[in-house]
Amino acid sequence: MEIYADNAATTKLSSSALKEMLPYYESIYGNPSSSHTAGRKAARAVKDARADIAGCLGCLPEEIIFTSGGTESDEQALISAAEEGKRNGKTHIVSTAIEHHAVLNTLEHLRKQGFSVTLLPVGSDGIVSVQDVMRAVRTDTCLVSVMYVNNEIGTIQPVSEIGRLCREKKIPFHTDAVAAAAHIKIDVKAQDIDMLSLSAHKFHGPKGTGVLYVRKGLPVTPLIRGGGQERGRRAGTENVPAVVGMACALKEVYRNIDKNSARLARLGEMLINGLKAVPHSALNGSTERVAGNVNFCFEGIEGESLLLLLDSKGIYASSGSACTSMSDEPSHVLRAIGRDDRLAGSSLRISLGDDASEEDVSYIIDNVTRSVEYLRGMSQEWKDKTAGKLKFLL
Amino acid sequence: MEIYADNAATTKLSSSALKEMLPYYESIYGNPSSSHTAGRKAARAVKDARADIAGCLGCLPEEIIFTSGGTESDEQALISAAEEGKRNGKTHIVSTAIEHHAVLNTLEHLRKQGFSVTLLPVGSDGIVSVQDVMRAVRTDTCLVSVMYVNNEIGTIQPVSEIGRLCREKKIPFHTDAVAAAAHIKIDVKAQDIDMLSLSAHKFHGPKGTGVLYVRKGLPVTPLIRGGGQERGRRAGTENVPAVVGMACALKEVYRNIDKNSARLARLGEMLINGLKAVPHSALNGSTERVAGNVNFCFEGIEGESLLLLLDSKGIYASSGSACTSMSDEPSHVLRAIGRDDRLAGSSLRISLGDDASEEDVSYIIDNVTRSVEYLRGMSQEWKDKTAGKLKFLL
Repeated sequence: MEIYADNAATTKLSSSALKEMLPYYESIYGNPSSSHTAGRKAARAVKDARADIAGCLGCLPEEIIFTSGGTESDEQALISAAEEGKRNGKTHIVSTAIEHHAVLNTLEHLRKQGFSVTLLPVGSDGIVSVQDVMRAVRTDTCLVSVMYVNNEIGTIQPVSEIGRLCREKKIPFHTDAVAAAAHIKIDVKAQDIDMLSLSAHKFHGPKGTGVLYVRKGLPVTPLIRGGGQERGRRAGTENVPAVVGMACALKEVYRNIDKNSARLARLGEMLINGLKAVPHSALNGSTERVAGNVNFCFEGIEGESLLLLLDSKGIYASSGSACTSMSDEPSHVLRAIGRDDRLAGSSLRISLGDDASEEDVSYIIDNVTRSVEYLRGMSQEWKDKTAGKLKFLL
Repeated sequence: MEIYADNAATTKLSSSALKEMLPYYESIYGNPSSSHTAGRKAARAVKDARADIAGCLGCLPEEIIFTSGGTESDEQALISAAEEGKRNGKTHIVSTAIEHHAVLNTLEHLRKQGFSVTLLPVGSDGIVSVQDVMRAVRTDTCLVSVMYVNNEIGTIQPVSEIGRLCREKKIPFHTDAVAAAAHIKIDVKAQDIDMLSLSAHKFHGPKGTGVLYVRKGLPVTPLIRGGGQERGRRAGTENVPAVVGMACALKEVYRNIDKNSARLARLGEMLINGLKAVPHSALNGSTERVAGNVNFCFEGIEGESLLLLLDSKGIYASSGSACTSMSDEPSHVLRAIGRDDRLAGSSLRISLGDDASEEDVSYIIDNVTRSVEYLRGMSQEWKDKTAGKLKFLL
């Protein structure tokens, strides 16, 4: 048995997307900037992909910038708003403690350049409060950046409310929607979103491409300088097959989102209920989460050991963000929702795919339960806890 | 008849490269940062690709950084050297007037940040003089950046000599080798190259990926900040299929380079001789050029009109760099070799592919000759020139 349950890390490329990409690898390989027929065919494909993605997000095609992925999109959004802020004497940025490192590390970079950054806390439910955002913004705030969905615990942030608030106060609002797009239909106009980041490989598109949406009229600083591609906002030969695949994947996800989300939500609930039955465990984040994301702490175990055991049973899950898996630091997200370092190190993130079945979920519950029990059985500390010599945290 | 003769703009993806890429789209789709089996398989592929590319270039695997392409690589090289220079009180950069805009625009950005930049001229042969480089470097020079091969006129720069000179003077040396790798075996150690940029789609690899080689010990500034990928030097989920395809394509090109270059050089010579027979024409750049690159000026015509006529005959060529094709500015490269604006606007770049035949070359010569004649026949100015009322430039 093999169950890929790490869809928050990356997803399988849609077979329709691959099918649409192949001609651009095999025969329509011109450079979209070339004026000959081969170039014009490629340019047409990029144009169509841009229009399709704009259609999905509810914006204008010229508001879409193709980048190399979510990380680049996040950084470019933040740098663009910061530079515009600086030109207007505004150097304060509001964000949250649970952002992806693409945002956090760029904020740290900006802080070194003299910007002041307010990182808002979140509640134990993993959700930022709109009131906190309201209280944090100042007359010199040049940007509010709040992620749409947290990539570790899947919690959905009140993006529309924050968007409305920022629009009223005329503060640019960016949202890292990388973990959202596979699950939530986004409408940037209706939701008052000024800038938004997407990464194709999180919604069954190819790796190596993403979107930065920037509302018309907002200035954009190029991160990658060179040729005049993307209207001078992002240089480098367009990745034609990738943007074609990304557009196809996004359309497909949006077409099936209601059906798939309902199904995934049911399976996610089944999984949450199953894992709640493991003693001394706790769900991380609230039920306001994207379908299929389940994140638990199991007191007394090492998350990495649990992953190893599950891997041996063909279950591919993670302890949190893949992007920080090489680091020994406990998750900043789990710490932000109040888990201590030991508990944060005992986490398991399961992110189900659209192809998950009830049998898969039962198999996962069964194996997680047994593996946790097994790992606890090997721990002296656990024995001391069950003997009442030490206190349980959960 | 259809002849793709714009290989300097982009190349057809190698079918072996595509074959090697497909499993990473179809089944081995894990995130290389994930610790489970699916992730480890992807990580293994990235590791192998890195080792293969390092093997081709003669460097260590850890000296290879995967980027989104040549433009990003160029910018990151320049920014890295500039930041290190600044830390050491060195803020002078030497480059050339014929670099790609990825270099020129980054230099312009650095100039605004207080760096002083010397752009060396080139001779009418399109080659920079090593003596000029030697005279230009100063005690406060933090970087010399000279492209390996010019992307428009194909001229090969004296990279090894410049490398040796820079190594003696302990000045970091970067070369944009984007237009070189399809034609020249590079050995970064033997050639004293400290930093080097490659773009996969210029050597039959996929679009959207490239290499930045940085010699061990030289500091690197990340351009794309976020997760810890590429040892903290380039964040963002690795583009697994693309780097697999890039490695395969580079190995293939290097395997066949002697055979293909000899063949292409012969065809290129045939093309040059054929086009020289067109009256009032001139080859741009010297014969020290990569095989298959042919760049001519035809006095009295508009390059864009010539391209249009050739396109209608199935010949896909360009007037110069695809990256600046949207701009009406005459080529900075042709101006640097002494062409006036009118002549620069009359240029045609033909870059033959490995699959080109003698028949293709004859067809191109025939059609270029006729098209130039046709366009000249429509021009009053040309009539005045042939009547002796106006002087010819060529």
